[in-house]
Amino acid sequence: MGSPLYQKVIDTIVARIASGEVLPGGMLPSETQLASETGVSQGTARKALMMLEQHGIVRREQGRGTFVTARTPDSSLFNFFRLRNRNGDVIRPELIDERLLERPATDVERETLQGAPLTVIEINRVRSLQGVASAIETAVVPADLFSGLERRAPLPSALYVLYQQAYGCIVLHADETIIAVPAGPEEAKILGVVEGTPLLQVERLAHDILGRPIERRHSIYRTDRLSYRVTLA
Amino acid sequence: MGSPLYQKVIDTIVARIASGEVLPGGMLPSETQLASETGVSQGTARKALMMLEQHGIVRREQGRGTFVTARTPDSSLFNFFRLRNRNGDVIRPELIDERLLERPATDVERETLQGAPLTVIEINRVRSLQGVASAIETAVVPADLFSGLERRAPLPSALYVLYQQAYGCIVLHADETIIAVPAGPEEAKILGVVEGTPLLQVERLAHDILGRPIERRHSIYRTDRLSYRVTLA
Repeated sequence: MGSPLYQKVIDTIVARIASGEVLPGGMLPSETQLASETGVSQGTARKALMMLEQHGIVRREQGRGTFVTARTPDSSLFNFFRLRNRNGDVIRPELIDERLLERPATDVERETLQGAPLTVIEINRVRSLQGVASAIETAVVPADLFSGLERRAPLPSALYVLYQQAYGCIVLHADETIIAVPAGPEEAKILGVVEGTPLLQVERLAHDILGRPIERRHSIYRTDRLSYRVTLA
Repeated sequence: MGSPLYQKVIDTIVARIASGEVLPGGMLPSETQLASETGVSQGTARKALMMLEQHGIVRREQGRGTFVTARTPDSSLFNFFRLRNRNGDVIRPELIDERLLERPATDVERETLQGAPLTVIEINRVRSLQGVASAIETAVVPADLFSGLERRAPLPSALYVLYQQAYGCIVLHADETIIAVPAGPEEAKILGVVEGTPLLQVERLAHDILGRPIERRHSIYRTDRLSYRVTLA
């Protein structure tokens, strides 16, 4: 699968933002410099900067240069700390179990994930809150985009930080579909509740800074001890 | 409760935005004009514009004037259309029952709603999807901010449009706390499910364009036929 030339320039810039080499507010090299560094024409470098500007990642100021506008990874990740205790405080349940598995993609995964992957990596995790298993999370990513991920186990608690630092994928946007479901036999066993107990199910499709759908996540929460917080603005 | 003088200028401007008299991108009168129209000093008018700028409602451009940056009510309201059917399409369940009630505020309402109201108006609504009762919503607003609301029944389906058009309150921000709950006897009866059926409970605190907490809303959804969609960016 050949990618257009401007993609090379975009990837170079995104990698610098992801690595922290260029901070929000920082200035990028000029079109001429970018073109020379990445071996493309100045027109191609310009096209890359225009696309990054359309995605809200950079801002070009006439006569001054191009500046990074993307939020820092920390502030963007902060939006994803959605679990709260009864007092409304942010909580980060402890990881108590993790299993990684490489497997063929399902039809839905092939249709919705970046690059129509044939193979995906599935990350199964259980988290506990004050010693009580409270969340079952299954994240699925394209195997080719996250090559070697299974060899990095145990993974850090915050997967998006890993995606960013090891693969240059900055998650900035996600769509979630939320419903209430009764605990099935397996979930009831893991979470220590009786079958049929109401649980919160969150299905998330996360997009990276370039708008590519890079992760599907299916999460199940016991909400007798925690709640899910959403802020709309 | 006396409000500061600049509040009068803010209210005047917000009312114009809410009514559509000034559109996003449109220019506001100068400080001198605003001061003369509202009977305050130029310094007070400047303070009001600075506060509106801090809230992201206007943008002041040196030597050019002050421009409205607030999103149009339509685009902001669109964010609140959160209910989807199984295909992911936006749905707007039909209103099948509405009851309004003026009553004393609870302690929590007095502590969290604008102006620490002694009295609130409670709007109870039931919505159905294709003939099946699917949502029970209870909205609570301060009685003094929404004076005469109970005489406007039946209310339009979208309350935020009413808040905006009749009271100049533009809802732009909301915090939601989401959990799964078992259907109690009353909910089971209204929604036609057996007691204990998992339901989605959404508690929302909505803020207006000035950051004032103007509505508490408690919603219960049957999610066997619909889902709750959240977009994070």
